Amino acid sequence: MQNFWDQRYAQRVQRMRSSAIRELLKITEHPDAISFAGGLPAPDVFPVEKIAAVTQKILREHSTQALQYGPTEGYRPLRELLAQQMSHDGLSISVDNIIITSGSQQGLDLLARIFVDPDDYILTESPTYMGALQVFAPYEPRYITIPSDEGGVRTDELEEALQHNRPKFMYILPNFQNPSGRTLTLQRRQHLLEIVNRYGIPVLEDDPYSQLRFAGEALLSLLDLTGSDYSSAQSGYQGKIIHLNTFSKILAPGLRLGWTVAPAGVISKLVQAKQGTDLHTSSFNQLIAYELLREGFFEKHIPLIRQKYHERRNVMLAALEEFFPAGTQWTHPEGGMFLWITLPAGMDSSELLREALEQEKVAFVPGHAFHPNGGGENTMRLSFSNATPERIRDGIERLGRVLQKKVEQATVRA
Amino acid sequence: MQNFWDQRYAQRVQRMRSSAIRELLKITEHPDAISFAGGLPAPDVFPVEKIAAVTQKILREHSTQALQYGPTEGYRPLRELLAQQMSHDGLSISVDNIIITSGSQQGLDLLARIFVDPDDYILTESPTYMGALQVFAPYEPRYITIPSDEGGVRTDELEEALQHNRPKFMYILPNFQNPSGRTLTLQRRQHLLEIVNRYGIPVLEDDPYSQLRFAGEALLSLLDLTGSDYSSAQSGYQGKIIHLNTFSKILAPGLRLGWTVAPAGVISKLVQAKQGTDLHTSSFNQLIAYELLREGFFEKHIPLIRQKYHERRNVMLAALEEFFPAGTQWTHPEGGMFLWITLPAGMDSSELLREALEQEKVAFVPGHAFHPNGGGENTMRLSFSNATPERIRDGIERLGRVLQKKVEQATVRA
Repeated sequence: MQNFWDQRYAQRVQRMRSSAIRELLKITEHPDAISFAGGLPAPDVFPVEKIAAVTQKILREHSTQALQYGPTEGYRPLRELLAQQMSHDGLSISVDNIIITSGSQQGLDLLARIFVDPDDYILTESPTYMGALQVFAPYEPRYITIPSDEGGVRTDELEEALQHNRPKFMYILPNFQNPSGRTLTLQRRQHLLEIVNRYGIPVLEDDPYSQLRFAGEALLSLLDLTGSDYSSAQSGYQGKIIHLNTFSKILAPGLRLGWTVAPAGVISKLVQAKQGTDLHTSSFNQLIAYELLREGFFEKHIPLIRQKYHERRNVMLAALEEFFPAGTQWTHPEGGMFLWITLPAGMDSSELLREALEQEKVAFVPGHAFHPNGGGENTMRLSFSNATPERIRDGIERLGRVLQKKVEQATVRA
Repeated sequence: MQNFWDQRYAQRVQRMRSSAIRELLKITEHPDAISFAGGLPAPDVFPVEKIAAVTQKILREHSTQALQYGPTEGYRPLRELLAQQMSHDGLSISVDNIIITSGSQQGLDLLARIFVDPDDYILTESPTYMGALQVFAPYEPRYITIPSDEGGVRTDELEEALQHNRPKFMYILPNFQNPSGRTLTLQRRQHLLEIVNRYGIPVLEDDPYSQLRFAGEALLSLLDLTGSDYSSAQSGYQGKIIHLNTFSKILAPGLRLGWTVAPAGVISKLVQAKQGTDLHTSSFNQLIAYELLREGFFEKHIPLIRQKYHERRNVMLAALEEFFPAGTQWTHPEGGMFLWITLPAGMDSSELLREALEQEKVAFVPGHAFHPNGGGENTMRLSFSNATPERIRDGIERLGRVLQKKVEQATVRA
């Protein structure tokens, strides 16, 4: 019976993988478990009352628009407002530069769908967002990877990496990167733009976390930096950055709302691709985001999220200092939801995970899966956004115990 | 500038087409226009008050589940309830046989993604749902087509069609088919199952309209007919029907909610594919559907939709009798949202559409695009679900005038 189906799957199915995060989320359903694995926002800052109020307003005043089929590119007033709010003195974005997607994850899928042929190269940081690798996989790309350090991707290695193969695009998360929590410095942003401009390489700038900065100074996005008149750019590198964004981290992921900014010609291809996948993103949910955006709700709301994540990051950093053995290193992100641990060389974080789950019911994501071309076995990602401060401290203590034991065993063996 | 992007698109982009419906919807934004084009439900039966009530309940009682990330396969209580309600004496469906999708359109995309390699054959009726052809296109299939008549697809031609090429699957809409409004007879359902069983061909049964029957007797679905123990089927043809369904036609399309029933092994591939496209369908919207389903809301609500569409179909049939010239034929659907017109041979419905829009601001969908391997230039689809009875009569009168003129011109020329 199973065989009946197995011989019928398409080739690309072999490339699909269930994400490590997903499997972990199942294990951590136990109430005693503490998970630093999933990139889940803190539910205590979901604006429940506010969403309840605007849904009533929408159903009273715009029920047909909220419940009927809508245009594939998205609810026009929402697209207009996003275009307006993203535009500024140095950047002009029009409604034709914006498509609403079912989460920015769908933006990635649609972009891969319109750009990636089998064996095309994608240029990425390593480590990079595992979810993007999963989206790209069925389109069968290969990867050129650049390592990163505390200042983000090592742009000094970029040109060398481009000598042999020309990528379809570069995929990068410049702010509080998933998984590392690192931010690309302004100098490197400029350096990166200079190189991709010279080589004619489009950049997919995935920017879900930039508004969640709780320390340090905000940096201009790659989109801002190339800016000027995005919508009618004729020359130079203007209009060659495609920018992905989301309401998942500033409102609620359960609404599945994101948006992609791209040149109008690219948007029209994305619209064709989206029409063949889900027709359009929930009208109801788009109207919710529109009402909140229009009221200026986010200006009051986002500071609450920042404050919460700042506190949780501080608790996690302090607990790491207290409970993690010498020889372990971690990043100090100025925003976002993640930090990145590097274990002593030769240690395997997948093994650590198994033991941590068994002995202490603590979960995280092993770092290997974030490396498109392999490596990173001694790295791991911790999310500090979802657990309460008490549970963060408790979980890091428990994880520290398992890790301490492993380090001691390694020493004995050596 | 445009050239920068044009040389970077993937091969499959050449297969993508913007749907004719989509372009038409734009033209018909004029308040004077009457559109029989889009398959839009009647907004006056959207249960606005009811949705307002359940959203408040959900946000009061289950806000975290409604707003947080959720599992890719869907909200478990919704999947359980759907499995339970679709099961009966002759059919046992389990929660593992169900994935929630962003509209049944996404179900089609995910199925094509896991099954269709370039140049694979898909077996379809002709005409068939244009949106499915659009979904399948980027996966680069070829088509084996079978004509249909008043009794649905001509199963007596099925075996002959299978002599040369073996399709990956058959795609069929047995009830009130889009575009023709035709329903496959029980005898032909049995005949079809006998043949696909013998040849080992899976069937994708797309069934968005079956609950919208307003005349005649309900027929068992293909899923029901093969039934028995679907979840652990070991032999024969059990478990080889994949069934697609949707809340779009019985609740509201703007929520983008559908579901697919398939063997557990196929569901797990669909889950992997969906994870790489949009992570999961809106939790908020899934909880709305769950609450309504749990309350038994649809048992009271669906009869209202049926009644409305029955009246509108009757008005359209009467207007066609009154205003359409001799030599034109149309179907008499017993449910659903569409009827199908066949113009005298040699007439071109695309030309008619241009003139109808220019002269009378009336829209419909020319039939050609519903034919995977071409043909049907003298056919057209009319939707009777969305316009009010007054506008249906008015629109058919206006369309009749344009058509009458064309028939007269043709006669003069001949």
